[in-house]
Amino acid sequence: MTTVAAYAAPAAKAPLERTTIERRAVGEFDVLIDIKFAGICHSDIHQAREGWGKATFPMVPGHEIAGVVSEVGPGVTKYAVGDRVGVGCMVDSCRECDNCRAGLQQYCAEGPVWTYNAVGKDGEPTYGGYSEKIVVDENYVVRIPDGLSLDVAAPLLCAGITTYSPLKHFGVGPGKKVAVVGLGGLGHMGVKIAHAMGAEVTVLSQSLRKKDDGLRLGADHYRATSDPQTFEDLRGTFDVVLNTVSAPLDFAAYLSLLRTEGAMVNVGLPEEPVRIELSAIFGNRRVLTSSNIGGIPETQEMLDFCAEHGLGAEIELIGADRINEAYERVLNSDVRYRFVIDTATI
Amino acid sequence: MTTVAAYAAPAAKAPLERTTIERRAVGEFDVLIDIKFAGICHSDIHQAREGWGKATFPMVPGHEIAGVVSEVGPGVTKYAVGDRVGVGCMVDSCRECDNCRAGLQQYCAEGPVWTYNAVGKDGEPTYGGYSEKIVVDENYVVRIPDGLSLDVAAPLLCAGITTYSPLKHFGVGPGKKVAVVGLGGLGHMGVKIAHAMGAEVTVLSQSLRKKDDGLRLGADHYRATSDPQTFEDLRGTFDVVLNTVSAPLDFAAYLSLLRTEGAMVNVGLPEEPVRIELSAIFGNRRVLTSSNIGGIPETQEMLDFCAEHGLGAEIELIGADRINEAYERVLNSDVRYRFVIDTATI
Repeated sequence: MTTVAAYAAPAAKAPLERTTIERRAVGEFDVLIDIKFAGICHSDIHQAREGWGKATFPMVPGHEIAGVVSEVGPGVTKYAVGDRVGVGCMVDSCRECDNCRAGLQQYCAEGPVWTYNAVGKDGEPTYGGYSEKIVVDENYVVRIPDGLSLDVAAPLLCAGITTYSPLKHFGVGPGKKVAVVGLGGLGHMGVKIAHAMGAEVTVLSQSLRKKDDGLRLGADHYRATSDPQTFEDLRGTFDVVLNTVSAPLDFAAYLSLLRTEGAMVNVGLPEEPVRIELSAIFGNRRVLTSSNIGGIPETQEMLDFCAEHGLGAEIELIGADRINEAYERVLNSDVRYRFVIDTATI
Repeated sequence: MTTVAAYAAPAAKAPLERTTIERRAVGEFDVLIDIKFAGICHSDIHQAREGWGKATFPMVPGHEIAGVVSEVGPGVTKYAVGDRVGVGCMVDSCRECDNCRAGLQQYCAEGPVWTYNAVGKDGEPTYGGYSEKIVVDENYVVRIPDGLSLDVAAPLLCAGITTYSPLKHFGVGPGKKVAVVGLGGLGHMGVKIAHAMGAEVTVLSQSLRKKDDGLRLGADHYRATSDPQTFEDLRGTFDVVLNTVSAPLDFAAYLSLLRTEGAMVNVGLPEEPVRIELSAIFGNRRVLTSSNIGGIPETQEMLDFCAEHGLGAEIELIGADRINEAYERVLNSDVRYRFVIDTATI
């Protein structure tokens, strides 16, 4: 057991504060990671404030973790001390179900062990990346390629894979048209990745406030969803509509933007119940679906893809003492485009 | 112009009665078909009773048409007098949009010309299969293979293609598990086709009343949806759930039966608005979609597939004077499994 400093929410909706937590001893297949950077994901806030239901406190959020291996267990074969690595939303899973065997650990039949706000296989609560160190089984660790700085790589562990996985699964590439709904932490990575995949990318955002950014990030077009003309002009246009917004939308309107057999993929999970008219999916074999991060092999593939294309997140690096302020700013959509905590400041 | 006998609904919800209609002169690319059999589809009733909204009367329903070519226009190259042919839900489309070019005429950007309750390119109302003869452009006619009797082939033009197309599109085949919801006109063809494709087929029906039939038609399993145990036992089982029921269902419950990345395909269009919780599609990248008949090339492919596997519809052959009675029985789910009108009796 090692005592490490961390930032934790002591109770639902309480501000995060500095504390210490225990990390387990490095087991046979574990790696000890000195965390260098941890991204702040909107879902950290959903959970710390119990927006998605009952949570466990104290909670150390953070599932966008980038760091360096500082110790390995005797059975570890994939990593060595000094390796640059990442940890995303999961730190374990059953490893035996069809999904785990297929590398889709995020859909583990028993549910994966989430990086925080969960219980590990040792029966102890899991604590996330807003901390100095973490101990993770090597099979749930990924390698950060040399071409990527650790700070801009951290958000890829959630925002990157959450957008890469559905874009790849639904066949995005040259000749395809993709709409990215919302230009936040997820959306800005969706734009970068879809563009790098060769697609024609349109950002659909409430206003044109971030238009210059969107075009700079790789979007070919940028349209305001507050303008009804947008929906008329773009009717039947897209192969994929990637919805990164977790607030309720007029789903029928967005579905109408799909081409024949196009897919609307939701990667943000609203806190409130959202109801969709079944009739909105009728016609042209449109698909309504969701996607939840990605499996471990695909997370590695995404990191390699991002390194190859020089894609990191656009970040605002903060000290740990600004986490609570950052939460408020995320809720106000006031971040371009991801807060990343320099964990040396914890 | 040719005057032919037909059965028509003179007004919304009025009983159908014998009348005469005009068929256009055989144009350059037209074939004149002596209709031999016409299936009664639930959607005939939806439309004749204005369940799907305002309709045009008098209405001659019928889009499951099997007959024999009796005359061809001078430009016709695909068919000759004496050929056994079918006509389904469409008799024309724009032929120029992306969907038409891709053989997906059912998703024509301008909307296809439906076989009845529509307006043809000549500006005249279209009349369907409950009649002695029909004139159709050869490009919207399909060939009924010799191995299929015309009476059992007629329902394939809608019930067959409506189930074949999504089963094929969503990858049904050996090693796949398919649930067919509802064992009616569509469902019984869904069972036959999915079985012939090599899948393991489960019928999900309100009761076990038709269980023997279902197993005989090719189902491997038959479960009652009135029994909550069914949903517990089958959770996460199916690659495809083909919903042929046009009444509202508990969609969240059916979606929970899907495996990872499985698809629930709705082919019945409810008359009432149906709302689905977005959260029901979250997890395991489940897909909610619909499918609407199939294109002309795929309709031919389906007929060839059915002939190869000896699949016709299970029919109850009736005289035209029993159409109104048949409508009532369809509404009471009292048909095994498709009424087919012997048009010689019109």
